Amino acid sequence: MSFTLDPRASYMMPAHFGPRPMHPNSSGWYHDVTAMTISYITDREKLAAYLPAPYEVDEEAVITVTYACSKNIDWLAGHGYNLIGVTAAVIHKGEKDTLRGTYTLVVWENLTDPILAGRELQGIPKIYADIPDHSLIGGKWRTNASHFGHKIIDLSIDNLRAPTEAELKLGAEMQEGRDNPMGCRYLAAAGGFGTAINEATLFPSESTVSEVQLGEGKVDWKHLTWEQNPTQFHIVNALAELPILGYLPAVVTKGSTNLVLPERFTRTLK
Amino acid sequence: MSFTLDPRASYMMPAHFGPRPMHPNSSGWYHDVTAMTISYITDREKLAAYLPAPYEVDEEAVITVTYACSKNIDWLAGHGYNLIGVTAAVIHKGEKDTLRGTYTLVVWENLTDPILAGRELQGIPKIYADIPDHSLIGGKWRTNASHFGHKIIDLSIDNLRAPTEAELKLGAEMQEGRDNPMGCRYLAAAGGFGTAINEATLFPSESTVSEVQLGEGKVDWKHLTWEQNPTQFHIVNALAELPILGYLPAVVTKGSTNLVLPERFTRTLK
Amino acid sequence: MSFTLDPRASYMMPAHFGPRPMHPNSSGWYHDVTAMTISYITDREKLAAYLPAPYEVDEEAVITVTYACSKNIDWLAGHGYNLIGVTAAVIHKGEKDTLRGTYTLVVWENLTDPILAGRELQGIPKIYADIPDHSLIGGKWRTNASHFGHKIIDLSIDNLRAPTEAELKLGAEMQEGRDNPMGCRYLAAAGGFGTAINEATLFPSESTVSEVQLGEGKVDWKHLTWEQNPTQFHIVNALAELPILGYLPAVVTKGSTNLVLPERFTRTLK
Amino acid sequence: MSFTLDPRASYMMPAHFGPRPMHPNSSGWYHDVTAMTISYITDREKLAAYLPAPYEVDEEAVITVTYACSKNIDWLAGHGYNLIGVTAAVIHKGEKDTLRGTYTLVVWENLTDPILAGRELQGIPKIYADIPDHSLIGGKWRTNASHFGHKIIDLSIDNLRAPTEAELKLGAEMQEGRDNPMGCRYLAAAGGFGTAINEATLFPSESTVSEVQLGEGKVDWKHLTWEQNPTQFHIVNALAELPILGYLPAVVTKGSTNLVLPERFTRTLK
Repeated sequence: MSFTLDPRASYMMPAHFGPRPMHPNSSGWYHDVTAMTISYITDREKLAAYLPAPYEVDEEAVITVTYACSKNIDWLAGHGYNLIGVTAAVIHKGEKDTLRGTYTLVVWENLTDPILAGRELQGIPKIYADIPDHSLIGGKWRTNASHFGHKIIDLSIDNLRAPTEAELKLGAEMQEGRDNPMGCRYLAAAGGFGTAINEATLFPSESTVSEVQLGEGKVDWKHLTWEQNPTQFHIVNALAELPILGYLPAVVTKGSTNLVLPERFTRTLK
Repeated sequence: MSFTLDPRASYMMPAHFGPRPMHPNSSGWYHDVTAMTISYITDREKLAAYLPAPYEVDEEAVITVTYACSKNIDWLAGHGYNLIGVTAAVIHKGEKDTLRGTYTLVVWENLTDPILAGRELQGIPKIYADIPDHSLIGGKWRTNASHFGHKIIDLSIDNLRAPTEAELKLGAEMQEGRDNPMGCRYLAAAGGFGTAINEATLFPSESTVSEVQLGEGKVDWKHLTWEQNPTQFHIVNALAELPILGYLPAVVTKGSTNLVLPERFTRTLK
Repeated sequence: MSFTLDPRASYMMPAHFGPRPMHPNSSGWYHDVTAMTISYITDREKLAAYLPAPYEVDEEAVITVTYACSKNIDWLAGHGYNLIGVTAAVIHKGEKDTLRGTYTLVVWENLTDPILAGRELQGIPKIYADIPDHSLIGGKWRTNASHFGHKIIDLSIDNLRAPTEAELKLGAEMQEGRDNPMGCRYLAAAGGFGTAINEATLFPSESTVSEVQLGEGKVDWKHLTWEQNPTQFHIVNALAELPILGYLPAVVTKGSTNLVLPERFTRTLK
Repeated sequence: MSFTLDPRASYMMPAHFGPRPMHPNSSGWYHDVTAMTISYITDREKLAAYLPAPYEVDEEAVITVTYACSKNIDWLAGHGYNLIGVTAAVIHKGEKDTLRGTYTLVVWENLTDPILAGRELQGIPKIYADIPDHSLIGGKWRTNASHFGHKIIDLSIDNLRAPTEAELKLGAEMQEGRDNPMGCRYLAAAGGFGTAINEATLFPSESTVSEVQLGEGKVDWKHLTWEQNPTQFHIVNALAELPILGYLPAVVTKGSTNLVLPERFTRTLK
């Protein structure tokens, strides 16, 4: 008896030991998410150079760097991990799908399990970094990422305060119709030369926020050599060379996120 | 100017920052590899249940567990990592390609970078585990793997001695025509349901051995729950339930390995 | 100009670079502490064998295992760490000081900085282990500790519920006059043979609790060999051999702790 | 029956579970040590400010930074660890003991067990850092240390070559009578104020070298803030401010080291 795939099940390599584990307590919920979100305006032309068609820079060339410390994640049996994700505000102008939202430039995570699932099932360009839990001292939130001992980025948010009613309303309006996290799912042919899969994807999620504070954010991208970070230096340097023309208000939130929406699964955009 | 792929280059996600980094000092060489290799006979029928067609169990149902501690890896700018790989002796009986070799059941590695490249470019089912450097005390070599603090496997080799001429000759003969590492490159469609890529792959490599010792090996697979290792428990339990019907001589080697053979790239088997 | 000690300052090795760093934002506060506390009755005689005079087992032979995940620690500039501590309910019957409280049998921590300070300045027998953040799934809290890849302990609390008024009152009464964390500060003479310091210490702290839940706890001590954990196996085995004769209600709390009380510093007991 | 110390045994906290474990396979041998040693001349007055009497700067104000990657350590049951140590060339001009050798300014190690033993039993000022295994690419050896994600030091050795006979002879002569590793064992009184132990120590070891290469070394100390490294920033900054007035030839070695010499134990200097 050899192994055969069940066409109704979901698999990842190694597939031959059976489908991705299911469990009654599993779900898409990340129950305890603490996030630092820092957005800034960058150079429109320089940003556009990293967007594959039919993605275009949105009205404003906004880069958003998000640190999230997630705990009590159901599909990881209650374990957690940290990430630092980088997105650009974009419009996807496809033949069928025209959507405003965010294009994921890169996501560093400090746990391999979600890196594999995110890359292969959703087209999220996740890669590894050491990301310590954020520190909080003197009212200032800080964290960083590094790989092979070499720093990739420092980020911090200071001078936190409660948002005003007007700010909350403005924030909700700015999100209106733009809560569409997108990316490009690229997989090479076996051997690495040629393209096997190259498609735009949309990976909806849903968040509830229990606490929100506004502050002044700062990101400090490092420049790296091949010797320091042979698999990622070109990514870090590209981000370091996108100018920071001005910061938007930074945000610290606590809440929950659900990555598996039964009515809106990850799908390919046309 | 938007991003476009160079058809002659090799990419991995995120592709939009450019091809996989090249460097004059990069190559496929792993210059300093210390390995413990432990093989055992298992139940033929039980093993066959994990092999997708057209893979079949070879004459003998042999499982091989290999721990490798690699240093001075050129493509990682001289860094290293540890792995524990599990293969089965198989024949690939395809329409075009009939080959004896090994089918990779799973590989645990303690560094994400080679996990991503191995999965996506070669179809090697690599996943993450904490794998300490081997210890050597009282003449006994030991190592282990664990994830989320829960042990996956203990392995050890004891009573090491130099091989005889006859053993070296026999070992070379047994390898003859069987040095074909193979696997199954499986990638789901976006969203995780349905199959995008499902193909047998061959990923040749070349090793030179500077030291070799024979000994008595032992592997001790653990049983795990979903709560202990939600992404891998089914893999570990499947391996733990393959009976160990007898050990072959275990081997400790030091040497070098080249994973990029210009004349024999990773390719799809038909 | 050579280095001289300032008699008014506090030093740790290396002392010659100056006193322990002070900073306006530093303090003894651990602002965000999540704890799992599991107590059980053990054999009185067996426990007594580990207590140096003038410590004696209290009315009941209670062992308490506490996991604490601490964040936003002021003296660590807002960083955090995890610990698993083991104490026994004791009476210190000294010539001058008679006190009921807890005797610290051992504390594992996953960060070296507080291990050094706790050992040298307070006489808390801290040692290192890998301690992941607790997981929470299906209402059950779990964590574990391991070293060199080998498990030391699994602990969990299940079936959590709010305490009744009567339980809260009883809990407060049982703490009354017993909130005295104590230990034995032992330091060998240079070279390791002979005793340089051997004294009972009291290291008061102060906690505020913002959330409390009661549940059913479980601890599972492992047995280890010298080869698995050469510096700690005797500690783990001793604890594993203390029988669990019955559990008390386990507690999950969130709150804050201050380890530096200006009016009640760590001191030696007589 | 309470716990009592055996006066003939060697203990560390927690002492009440018995003496430091002994095992037939244990010894002071580090069987596989790969080291990078980089020495430089610094400012005599500035260095003198960190030496407690009766230590004095030797004829030349030489700082030596040594990275050692040790494997197969007997007392750790065959496990290993990495360190970066910093010493100064000194003369101990005591009332009884006048010795030329090295004064240990600080040692970073990536494993807590030897940190505790080194501090408490020998007076070696060991503290923790993340220290990756060295990388070797393009003939250049590199490593680094960091803590909480913030870099402490980068070090490298390039242009390696075999030493000449004259160089080997000179090296041996320069070591003659100076192979005396020394330090200052400082332990505060309970509570951290006042001095309990303050003594010069000598901790002899013995090394055999199987390979040696000479090259050009470079060290790059970083400047850190309290927020980045609250327990060590003052140490790193002090070292960063000692000028590098010129490098001596750097050395890469492989060999073995024995830290327990039966005839020459660690002892206090007078």
